[in-house]
Amino acid sequence: MSERLLVIGGDAAGMSAASQARRRRAADDLIIDVFEMTQRVSYSACGEPYFISGDVPRIEQLIARTPAQFAAQDINVHLGHMVTEIDIDDHTVTVRSETGTQTVPYDQLVYATGARPVAPPIEGVDLGGVFHLKTLDDAEAIKASAESAQSAVVVGGGYIGLEMAEAFHVRGLSTTLITSGAVVMNRSLDADLGAKVTSGMRERGIEVVPGHRVNCLADKAGHVRGVEVGDTILEADLVVLALGTRPVSELAAEAGIRIGPTGAVAVDDRQRTSVDGVWAAGDCAEALHRLTGRPANVHLGTVANKQGRVAGINIGGGDATFPGILGTAITKVLDIEIARTGLSQEEADEAGIEAVTATTDSTTMAGYWPESSDMTLKVTAEIGSGRLLGAQIVGGRTAGKRIDTLATGIWNEMDGLSFSMMDLSYAPPFSGTWDPVLVAARRAYERAV
Amino acid sequence: MSERLLVIGGDAAGMSAASQARRRRAADDLIIDVFEMTQRVSYSACGEPYFISGDVPRIEQLIARTPAQFAAQDINVHLGHMVTEIDIDDHTVTVRSETGTQTVPYDQLVYATGARPVAPPIEGVDLGGVFHLKTLDDAEAIKASAESAQSAVVVGGGYIGLEMAEAFHVRGLSTTLITSGAVVMNRSLDADLGAKVTSGMRERGIEVVPGHRVNCLADKAGHVRGVEVGDTILEADLVVLALGTRPVSELAAEAGIRIGPTGAVAVDDRQRTSVDGVWAAGDCAEALHRLTGRPANVHLGTVANKQGRVAGINIGGGDATFPGILGTAITKVLDIEIARTGLSQEEADEAGIEAVTATTDSTTMAGYWPESSDMTLKVTAEIGSGRLLGAQIVGGRTAGKRIDTLATGIWNEMDGLSFSMMDLSYAPPFSGTWDPVLVAARRAYERAV
Repeated sequence: MSERLLVIGGDAAGMSAASQARRRRAADDLIIDVFEMTQRVSYSACGEPYFISGDVPRIEQLIARTPAQFAAQDINVHLGHMVTEIDIDDHTVTVRSETGTQTVPYDQLVYATGARPVAPPIEGVDLGGVFHLKTLDDAEAIKASAESAQSAVVVGGGYIGLEMAEAFHVRGLSTTLITSGAVVMNRSLDADLGAKVTSGMRERGIEVVPGHRVNCLADKAGHVRGVEVGDTILEADLVVLALGTRPVSELAAEAGIRIGPTGAVAVDDRQRTSVDGVWAAGDCAEALHRLTGRPANVHLGTVANKQGRVAGINIGGGDATFPGILGTAITKVLDIEIARTGLSQEEADEAGIEAVTATTDSTTMAGYWPESSDMTLKVTAEIGSGRLLGAQIVGGRTAGKRIDTLATGIWNEMDGLSFSMMDLSYAPPFSGTWDPVLVAARRAYERAV
Repeated sequence: MSERLLVIGGDAAGMSAASQARRRRAADDLIIDVFEMTQRVSYSACGEPYFISGDVPRIEQLIARTPAQFAAQDINVHLGHMVTEIDIDDHTVTVRSETGTQTVPYDQLVYATGARPVAPPIEGVDLGGVFHLKTLDDAEAIKASAESAQSAVVVGGGYIGLEMAEAFHVRGLSTTLITSGAVVMNRSLDADLGAKVTSGMRERGIEVVPGHRVNCLADKAGHVRGVEVGDTILEADLVVLALGTRPVSELAAEAGIRIGPTGAVAVDDRQRTSVDGVWAAGDCAEALHRLTGRPANVHLGTVANKQGRVAGINIGGGDATFPGILGTAITKVLDIEIARTGLSQEEADEAGIEAVTATTDSTTMAGYWPESSDMTLKVTAEIGSGRLLGAQIVGGRTAGKRIDTLATGIWNEMDGLSFSMMDLSYAPPFSGTWDPVLVAARRAYERAV
């Protein structure tokens, strides 16, 4: 008799799980149904700012695969279907859609509900012209609004905040970013690097107002007209609230599935939850941080894809494990690239790891190469052993992807000296003779040992 | 009583050794003299093609440090001084310069003579307008010649050949590259990737004539007028012979210093030669290949710098070891980036390692990102274990430096599956959600295991 797999949430994690399970088990062995509450599955949320900016002209470009493509693989995608309850004793879920409510039995269940934007408890968040960015619908609405707007305020200095500020600036809107931190990216970068990004944004024409929270949103006939910050109002036709995201774990919690210390669903390295037959993956699930040894909860497509894949392989009868994360991430604002991996000094301190951090100012390519630009690397290493713990990079074009080399060294528990002697590539259009990651790792080692 | 360090050769390896020795031992403890046969030290040979192309306008930009800067560090640089003999019993060298010949005693000797271009045994190599590229003087002469030339032929399809072809093309010369291989880069890349580079060059307006050796160079009044290939003459005002380089090891051999199987000076991992007190580093010295376990001899600034550094630290009383190489290298022709590391399938076969290679066609950035371009990755893995052995990349802007991530994985003896699950960075302007290196490594693993 065939088993039935239900997947709650049809984006990266859920669809990866469905696809991998299907690869290993045919349709007569495993029936797969995906319940997605929006009207689209399998899209690149990370690409949305670039649809809004116009870099990516058509929204369809952000869709990796359509429901029809999944149907051809015998994966039944149900759009506009919201799961409202999971009954772990009866092995059923309750699903609500336009046509009513139904109870659907499962043998295997993948919980992949993702994350939702944090809504600040301030007045005016429901005004016209005020947006969160999460779904493709959000992206379309923001872009439509931006087409007639003159000015935009972005609230939040993290990844999405920066990317939205870039998007509005690229569109020619007068753009202001407000962040409660002293500088932007204060949860991802040390303050000195955050300050570099902040000043770089200002030099390029994006206003940054740090150290402020928004009191409320001011309105005019139901539409936002500005953001009250301190005792002034910053005028804006368009406001995006980018104050971070939280895992959608309530449904799991109500069902009695264990929630971890981060507020996301607790999973083991095979993506199993505390309940037999129930798996979780993606933004709604925890992930082991390899350096702290503690559960973390990051909202990144990379992790969602990998965890979904692991869940799907295991459901399909394979044997896969998710090896954990380092917290690697990258973004850009115009030509400023920003990347990080592992632990910052502060994060190492919090984790009880004695660490030291060295800063290396360098260039993206040979100093004499015409397209070379400034790049600053910070590398954190464990005191005593010199083991690499983390890295942060801010610099011009080609700076950011260097984080992958450092991430690979950290992943392999290399010390900074061993790392510095590795045989990495060099030619003047690409780096100095000693790639700056080698120099930065050695400096961290020398301070640590 | 102070010791005396003599360094033969004042480029990357020699000057790194001198500098590191000086950092650890003051001038009253260690006297340092460098004999350099040309008129310049410490320059970027790798940057010379870009001086010739005009990307780097002034030759001084290629000089990292001047003799005066070394003098300020109590390192005595003697330009125009050629060492003609080493007497390992007397601990002396014989040095010839404009002012005569002298015998100079040493306690420590660093042999860093570098490499020299291979001169093909054909008629016409001494004609006007025919050049090798090695020293800054060569670069200046080629650039001067290119300023009045209409057409150039580059003989040789390796790194320098490609870079010179690019330089002449950028200058607006009608440019032809002749290579004896079926495609360019046939010693660095597999034939399919070499073919991609070859066709890419042609599409961009550089003529490539593969599968041919040059018979002779045709002249007109002592100046080259063309290159005879097969039974035709390719007209050219300017010819560069880029047929590879050979280690300058004769002086060492004559002195009784052991030469290894590659023809370069044999060294241990502390850069000691077979003779007490004599060290070797850089293009003239061997380097352990980490994957084959055999000595190799590569001519790269990266290796020269690291080996020179190791020799200098050890002479200075420190304890450094050179951990070996993977054979990592990178270059570009116009917007085509080319990189490789580790063993190709053929090299693995030669080394007696059972291996398999997988090819992955991908894009440099998210497929929908406007600046994204094609990229092909080949990854070689050991059969059975799936251990990563090598990688090759050909693609558009930002493709090449990904080789460092693969090199770091290979360095750490990762298998392709473990590699594929690493936490690398992703955002649409930088890569797909699964960076193509992850996918390529997994495919190699799946074929190997």
